Amino acid sequence: MAPMRGRMMDVPLTLVPLVERGVGLYGRQVVVTQRAEGPPRRATFAEVGARAHRLARALHDLGVGPGDRVGTMAWNTQEHLEAYLAVPCMGAVLHTVNVRLHPDQLAHVIADGGDRVLLCQRACLPALAAIADRLPTVERVVTFGEGEDAPGGAGHLDYEALLAASDRPLAWPDLDERQAAGLCHTSATTGDPKGVVYSHRSLYLHTLSLLATGFLPGGFSDADVVLPVVPMFHVNGWGLPHASVAVGAALVLPDRFLDPARLVGLLAGERVTLTAGVPSIWGPLLQRLDAEPTPLPGLRGILCGGAAAPPTLIEGFDRHGLTVIHAWGMTETSPLGTTVRVKHLLEPALDPAARLRVRASQGLPAIGFEVRVMDLATGELCPSDGRHQGELQVRAPWVCDGYLGREDREAFTADGWLRTGDVATLDPEGYLRLVDRTKDLVKSGGEWISSVALETLLMGHPQVDEAAVVGQPDPRWGERPVAFVVARPGAEGGLTPAALLEHLRPHVARYWLPDRILFVDAIPKTGVGKFDKRALRRRLAEGAAADTEPGAPQGSR
Amino acid sequence: MAPMRGRMMDVPLTLVPLVERGVGLYGRQVVVTQRAEGPPRRATFAEVGARAHRLARALHDLGVGPGDRVGTMAWNTQEHLEAYLAVPCMGAVLHTVNVRLHPDQLAHVIADGGDRVLLCQRACLPALAAIADRLPTVERVVTFGEGEDAPGGAGHLDYEALLAASDRPLAWPDLDERQAAGLCHTSATTGDPKGVVYSHRSLYLHTLSLLATGFLPGGFSDADVVLPVVPMFHVNGWGLPHASVAVGAALVLPDRFLDPARLVGLLAGERVTLTAGVPSIWGPLLQRLDAEPTPLPGLRGILCGGAAAPPTLIEGFDRHGLTVIHAWGMTETSPLGTTVRVKHLLEPALDPAARLRVRASQGLPAIGFEVRVMDLATGELCPSDGRHQGELQVRAPWVCDGYLGREDREAFTADGWLRTGDVATLDPEGYLRLVDRTKDLVKSGGEWISSVALETLLMGHPQVDEAAVVGQPDPRWGERPVAFVVARPGAEGGLTPAALLEHLRPHVARYWLPDRILFVDAIPKTGVGKFDKRALRRRLAEGAAADTEPGAPQGSR
Repeated sequence: MAPMRGRMMDVPLTLVPLVERGVGLYGRQVVVTQRAEGPPRRATFAEVGARAHRLARALHDLGVGPGDRVGTMAWNTQEHLEAYLAVPCMGAVLHTVNVRLHPDQLAHVIADGGDRVLLCQRACLPALAAIADRLPTVERVVTFGEGEDAPGGAGHLDYEALLAASDRPLAWPDLDERQAAGLCHTSATTGDPKGVVYSHRSLYLHTLSLLATGFLPGGFSDADVVLPVVPMFHVNGWGLPHASVAVGAALVLPDRFLDPARLVGLLAGERVTLTAGVPSIWGPLLQRLDAEPTPLPGLRGILCGGAAAPPTLIEGFDRHGLTVIHAWGMTETSPLGTTVRVKHLLEPALDPAARLRVRASQGLPAIGFEVRVMDLATGELCPSDGRHQGELQVRAPWVCDGYLGREDREAFTADGWLRTGDVATLDPEGYLRLVDRTKDLVKSGGEWISSVALETLLMGHPQVDEAAVVGQPDPRWGERPVAFVVARPGAEGGLTPAALLEHLRPHVARYWLPDRILFVDAIPKTGVGKFDKRALRRRLAEGAAADTEPGAPQGSR
Repeated sequence: MAPMRGRMMDVPLTLVPLVERGVGLYGRQVVVTQRAEGPPRRATFAEVGARAHRLARALHDLGVGPGDRVGTMAWNTQEHLEAYLAVPCMGAVLHTVNVRLHPDQLAHVIADGGDRVLLCQRACLPALAAIADRLPTVERVVTFGEGEDAPGGAGHLDYEALLAASDRPLAWPDLDERQAAGLCHTSATTGDPKGVVYSHRSLYLHTLSLLATGFLPGGFSDADVVLPVVPMFHVNGWGLPHASVAVGAALVLPDRFLDPARLVGLLAGERVTLTAGVPSIWGPLLQRLDAEPTPLPGLRGILCGGAAAPPTLIEGFDRHGLTVIHAWGMTETSPLGTTVRVKHLLEPALDPAARLRVRASQGLPAIGFEVRVMDLATGELCPSDGRHQGELQVRAPWVCDGYLGREDREAFTADGWLRTGDVATLDPEGYLRLVDRTKDLVKSGGEWISSVALETLLMGHPQVDEAAVVGQPDPRWGERPVAFVVARPGAEGGLTPAALLEHLRPHVARYWLPDRILFVDAIPKTGVGKFDKRALRRRLAEGAAADTEPGAPQGSR
């Protein structure tokens, strides 16, 4: 016999009450969008909410029905936020398309999503134009924002004209909590991008967990002013748009203007309290602050995820009185997985070095998010001793359980956990540390070498800007590590492979020392700004141009 | 065709990951329980968690299976917390029984729950002894805590002995999110108490919303030390036990020692940051602080619910630098419904009087909680103008949808909202204000008179401790208001009905002035500490002893 059931309302978990709460209670709260020139645009939550209902009517009139995909090609703007609210709440699926992708991937992603309508910021039209003949599913393109429609865009519809003509705002229909609400493709460092299909239930729970977990000292409330630098085409904008609307926090949207000078201006001018982005944004921003100190007294937290934050970055912002909060997640995890909070009970016992080590970890699991580290050789859980390495596996109601249109289960364990492909440790306090991607580990003489650990150490050298390590096939050892290094401007000539090996030597086993250190102008990046290790391996296979042998003193380039 | 579904993990929403997170990540966090004498008992989350698994094994061995009800008769103690964790996580149903109930109600509640096992604190054994022959469903009584088992308790099992014998801690089984996890009976100011059956899903969501809503400036985190004065037999201890465990906050449990002196000692001694209870606790505690100021520097918030907090109470604590946070909820709402947060955008515009008016409101709906105010005469929503009064109706995934063993739908609207029976207004900012219980309104000459408004005004008089207003049948007007007043100690002789009428006159319409003001030693209370208006009406019908006519000057009593 089934056990007694609760007698609670079967209210579906959807974005609708979260959106309506924010718009209803905080109608005078603001959404600020940076422009190419002049002061930012400002709109109230009430205006954005009303426009979302009009957008929904316009999309409905274009034939968008329940479950249909509406693609967005846009930076962080008010219109993108309107689509974030309107599309899921009308029962359709918001497909955020990464506008930085290679045209082949872009065409694949839009076709894979089956997008019927594309909402395209005019600044993104060149990317769209490049694949204009490869959009079999797209019936309509709606354009918005600064600029002109490109030649050939004659069939495009104007967003503002559609809203103006939409005289009967659409009311939100009843929704099933399991129905799709969002779609985002993985960054696909290997193979084609795969679609992750978020449900209303998963986005609702993700929003609540983000707000509940308390990663931000001082909480997250309507007193906050949130600047997501992370593009809204990345994994639900890390959940910040939905969370900010639900709790009534102001949103400051930078559009496509992400250079350090403009970001500092926006952070200061709008008195931002919380911002979020990847390390490759914060590195240059820190350099800017170092060069030109700017008081940012309201800024309580700089959420940093997408790639490991080097400790030097955390320390660098500390010098300005600014707190980097390290976080980890994936497209598959909505993305909130772990965030660093230095436990209150730990604080008294931590010396500065230990405290930094905690802050540079990937942190503690969010409320409702479960992690485990599995020894793939033995199939046993690794002990939480901070040393045993295994594959990070995760589980939560907001973790994907399969990819759009694919039935393969390689990414999932038999008992239903997601195999992240990350190699990790857990320490006795529960702090997660990513050691590497399973596929980025270098296997030398049967031993594992962590490319990420080597990269972090190399980037800790004051004259190094960026470093990426990959394995090169080796007849004797199987693989040997090779480092690609970008010297800091001004360091050229002074920085040598030998100096870097001496820098590494105290920290790693002898066999970890890279066989070669290659100075390059830049490290190739993927569409989401991560090191493109496939490209680096290809370059090695083709014979790197600026090859140097360690120990042979020489300048960069 | 059904719309496309999300492809997210079907992880059930249960208390298990919340409990395991707290115990796993914050194993060294403490649970502190006050004792009759001497310093409080202390245990770690790890110890409490391990004991919960042993308790589950012991209950399992006593025959408790999925869906079976385990009753608790206990104040706020470590063992009660262990039951909060063990019983739902093992798949059984935690039935928190109000030990203050009249024996007839107590017997009804336990039989209505169908409790097979009772976990009874020894201090509560006298209440149990009074109904020993009226426990048809109870197979076993397990006792714990200070004191001796009473004579006649020979068949009782000892909690500690059971845990000591439980050598194979029970692992948490797989659970369905809709299965029952908790049961609590309403306070039943009319009729028999009715059972509200919480599901794992509802308790999970309630916990996340409590943490997410941000009612507490500074958030709610592992840096908090939480003292629930509200008994854990009231509505899930207002959600604080689950929320504190999930987020890793310390819990300080006062047991049955709720006198102001001991509470102040505990608040100060344990550096409590957040406490919660009803106004009838905070009134005497404020008097104590006024008489004997005690620094409570860590105390960030005093959550006050269960009955309306008079503005004088809020102001009184302000004088000590302490912040009362007004909240509203019901047994039927888990209970989190609304909490006051002064909107950041409103702050600059509020003068002290307007700010106090906001803080004395019932506040804003929690994230995921929906409220509406319905004009029962017209069946239309009342405008949110702060004036139109109607019935408060609410909806959320943690609001009940029916009572244990009852099929009647009187408490629910046809479209699935709970009819709270409260008369309320909503202002343009969304702040909820309860005007009265629908059944406590006084109907005089076809006009409504709010007993709560009169009570609040009367209790604002410096010489009044408590005041309750009820309607008395009147041949001409239908009903007329009558006030029962408890004079503040020292006020006797000086306080007259005429003075109180003069106090009221500037604030209310002439027809609102009570026909009679009766001085009494105490206002009778229900089992949950609310004014027992049924008893007051009965007393009126029988002819009150200390009857006085307004205008006829005389002393109290």
